[in-house]
Amino acid sequence: MNEKKFTNFWAHRISRWSKVSYKAGLAAIAAVLWMALPVKSDAQQSMEDDALFIRKIYDQTLTDCSAYDWLAFLCKKIGGRLAGSPQASAAVEYTGQMLDTLGLDAVWKQPCTVPHWVRGDKERVRVVSSFKLGSFDLRTTTLGNSVPTPEGGLVAEVVEVQSLDEVDRLGEEGVSGKIVFFNRPMNPQEINTFSAYGGAVDQRGSGPSRAAKYGAVGALVRSMTTEIDDHPHTGSLGYSPDFPKIPAMAVSTRDAEKLSDLLADGPVRVFMETNCNSFDPKPSFNVIGEIKGSEHPEQIIVIGGHLDSWETGEGAHDDGAGCVQSMAVLQTLMRLGYKPKRTIRCVLFMNEENGLAGGRAYGAAANEKGEFHMAAIESDRGGFTPRGFTFDADESVFAEKFKKVYTWQPLLEPYGLSLSKGGSGADIGPLKSQKGLLIGFYPDSQRYFDYHHTETDRLEAVNKRELELGAASMTALVYLLDKYGLDR
Amino acid sequence: MNEKKFTNFWAHRISRWSKVSYKAGLAAIAAVLWMALPVKSDAQQSMEDDALFIRKIYDQTLTDCSAYDWLAFLCKKIGGRLAGSPQASAAVEYTGQMLDTLGLDAVWKQPCTVPHWVRGDKERVRVVSSFKLGSFDLRTTTLGNSVPTPEGGLVAEVVEVQSLDEVDRLGEEGVSGKIVFFNRPMNPQEINTFSAYGGAVDQRGSGPSRAAKYGAVGALVRSMTTEIDDHPHTGSLGYSPDFPKIPAMAVSTRDAEKLSDLLADGPVRVFMETNCNSFDPKPSFNVIGEIKGSEHPEQIIVIGGHLDSWETGEGAHDDGAGCVQSMAVLQTLMRLGYKPKRTIRCVLFMNEENGLAGGRAYGAAANEKGEFHMAAIESDRGGFTPRGFTFDADESVFAEKFKKVYTWQPLLEPYGLSLSKGGSGADIGPLKSQKGLLIGFYPDSQRYFDYHHTETDRLEAVNKRELELGAASMTALVYLLDKYGLDR
Repeated sequence: MNEKKFTNFWAHRISRWSKVSYKAGLAAIAAVLWMALPVKSDAQQSMEDDALFIRKIYDQTLTDCSAYDWLAFLCKKIGGRLAGSPQASAAVEYTGQMLDTLGLDAVWKQPCTVPHWVRGDKERVRVVSSFKLGSFDLRTTTLGNSVPTPEGGLVAEVVEVQSLDEVDRLGEEGVSGKIVFFNRPMNPQEINTFSAYGGAVDQRGSGPSRAAKYGAVGALVRSMTTEIDDHPHTGSLGYSPDFPKIPAMAVSTRDAEKLSDLLADGPVRVFMETNCNSFDPKPSFNVIGEIKGSEHPEQIIVIGGHLDSWETGEGAHDDGAGCVQSMAVLQTLMRLGYKPKRTIRCVLFMNEENGLAGGRAYGAAANEKGEFHMAAIESDRGGFTPRGFTFDADESVFAEKFKKVYTWQPLLEPYGLSLSKGGSGADIGPLKSQKGLLIGFYPDSQRYFDYHHTETDRLEAVNKRELELGAASMTALVYLLDKYGLDR
Repeated sequence: MNEKKFTNFWAHRISRWSKVSYKAGLAAIAAVLWMALPVKSDAQQSMEDDALFIRKIYDQTLTDCSAYDWLAFLCKKIGGRLAGSPQASAAVEYTGQMLDTLGLDAVWKQPCTVPHWVRGDKERVRVVSSFKLGSFDLRTTTLGNSVPTPEGGLVAEVVEVQSLDEVDRLGEEGVSGKIVFFNRPMNPQEINTFSAYGGAVDQRGSGPSRAAKYGAVGALVRSMTTEIDDHPHTGSLGYSPDFPKIPAMAVSTRDAEKLSDLLADGPVRVFMETNCNSFDPKPSFNVIGEIKGSEHPEQIIVIGGHLDSWETGEGAHDDGAGCVQSMAVLQTLMRLGYKPKRTIRCVLFMNEENGLAGGRAYGAAANEKGEFHMAAIESDRGGFTPRGFTFDADESVFAEKFKKVYTWQPLLEPYGLSLSKGGSGADIGPLKSQKGLLIGFYPDSQRYFDYHHTETDRLEAVNKRELELGAASMTALVYLLDKYGLDR
């Protein structure tokens, strides 16, 4: 059989066996041939097996997968799930029950202690005097972890800045007694929207304390999105212990532009009220399910997302999607009858949004028990069409581990996946010291910040096929990690 | 300056000049270095220029581009634009006026003669007797080019088939006097949804005539989408001249499943009525704008989409998106003060959906005038996140031309674009005999068939950033085609 005949033979065979198109069969074969060229025929056979099994994973996931139904329950029957809330407890119970149905080797809840912040029922920012428009409300929402305004709210003049540095430059004279309005937009020229987010989010995270340093009484922050629309986007702030805590709220991008226009015409005074509150920390849980490894049970591969979400929306893309995709990885492997060599563990982390208590508790327990996490994949960038994975590890081991993983690229490329260096996920970050491989699932980023931390992050924003393709991509990578391992 | 220093120097320089992140600068440099390795320093300089100019194209398009506003007008002020309709005339007028504002060298309308089919105001398919559910309506819409039912509609028993072959097997005995219901789903296991579409659409295109061959009185066709939902999807059928023309309608996927379930329980009779009609052909137009080339005006690079659309929705993704992206290519080049060597021509084709009169007229006129189309890019796969381009050409020239284009891959990769062999677009197909390069813009395909030819293909389904990224991608490729040319 010459090379061409061989290719045709296998393309047809793959196509018949796994019901893929002849073209997809050819692509798989191309991958196999490409990889097989310099190696011996055992390895060739092994790569053919891989191409076929990965095709099976996609076939199974695209036709028979519960991810979307689980997400629908999380979004519509439970809703937003901030740590410490009744909804977060419901999500722990529900996902635990669903994992119980999969026939895994073990399902359990891992305790952690979470902050308990509640938005309250008053959220109002009103321009009370301006040169052109007089009085009107701005579309706003309180930032997570914020302190409340004094009872009855506060009124102050607004000063607009583009950066934390500008607050420093204005100093006490420019800021004291005022509300500082951080209005630097996310840069629309960034192709990856997460880079644009990274370039603007210091205003939300650190802006309020910077303003407080110079005597500001409140902070307003432009919502973190490149869209110009009417939805205020919440998210956590972090107070510096060195300065007074002042209340802080997010403003929709359209109203941020409007406020900025008004400020160009003259002084603007604003009324600001929020009765959010922090209560005593509460007990909560990570939810965990696993298939024990048959050969190296002590080597753990984690897949996970975070179960908590902001309550302004339904936590669909952030991060219900990542949770149900991680659960679906186990479901698919079980349904295909796959017996892993290594332990494959799905972890649904609690409290990523405003504390990271779940991720920290998981990391601490893992270290305490001397567990080794060979690899951990987090899906926390939305349930959009997969584009690949980004890889991170301790510097001393990164090159060697990534080199091995990169040899799998031809097997994943037919599914639109590319592998590159980059961040992983907040919840799995504490595992980095174990010197395993940390992996971030990387879906298309263009729409993510349209929905991020706002009321539009609902089930309707998630496409079933895209969600499933993500789950299948994660399963394929888990399969390769399990089969070939990564040297410790 | 060693290699590392060189890289850092240029990454910072690019980053400062074009306001991209340092990381994107690095990526551009990596591309440049990769390409420059085996070549001389003139070429290296040239590639640096390219990386910078392409970055400029994206910066300009993502911050100052009219594509989305134009699309909003086409969708909301004009609406669905079937060839021969008043809306199609409005679209010709509007896009001509918009091209007129760009300061191009020429804008004109190119005549063509289009079929004039009208859906009518009666569209009903009702199950009139079934074992389980008695009578109820199915969600349906008439297929384009269909003949009407006899006045007052028709009633007949339904026979379900999975393929055209199955109609042959049933023959006259199984089909005569009945309504044939084509119900083979699009294959959800295909990763590229266009492949799934290609594997099912013969039922819509050729099913009705196949059924008529054996005496069927009507045809129902499962809607072309992998979603299970309530939207019937229209689209063209083609009648064979050898058999009677029978009326044909599309059924929503959910109702197709329901009808199939009913048929499993016993005979189902259906009432079917549509008063669609074909009238005399009408004069219409392609809309064309161009920038004349300074060195090789006789070498033409076309970018285009089709201006007509089904009237069930607003023709947003199909193909308002492709039209406004093509217009935006010229707008961006003009705003950047780019003086092309070759003639760059935007063509908005008429009547792609039900006749291809515009594409044919354009091709015929081009051949008649002896014009040479060095390359033609069509955007007709929706306004989603770009993933690359697919290339086609006459077999005798394909390899050589694609080889040249493929050297540009490293310049386009930082923007998520990959180049591969594949189809181009229906409207530019008639240019193939000129032996230029035909190119299809290839955006992410996952959501396309959720909206295709149905009421949900509205402006709201299009994301502004994704649309603009597509326009920028097309502009970048046009720039490279213009600068380097492709040997005739």
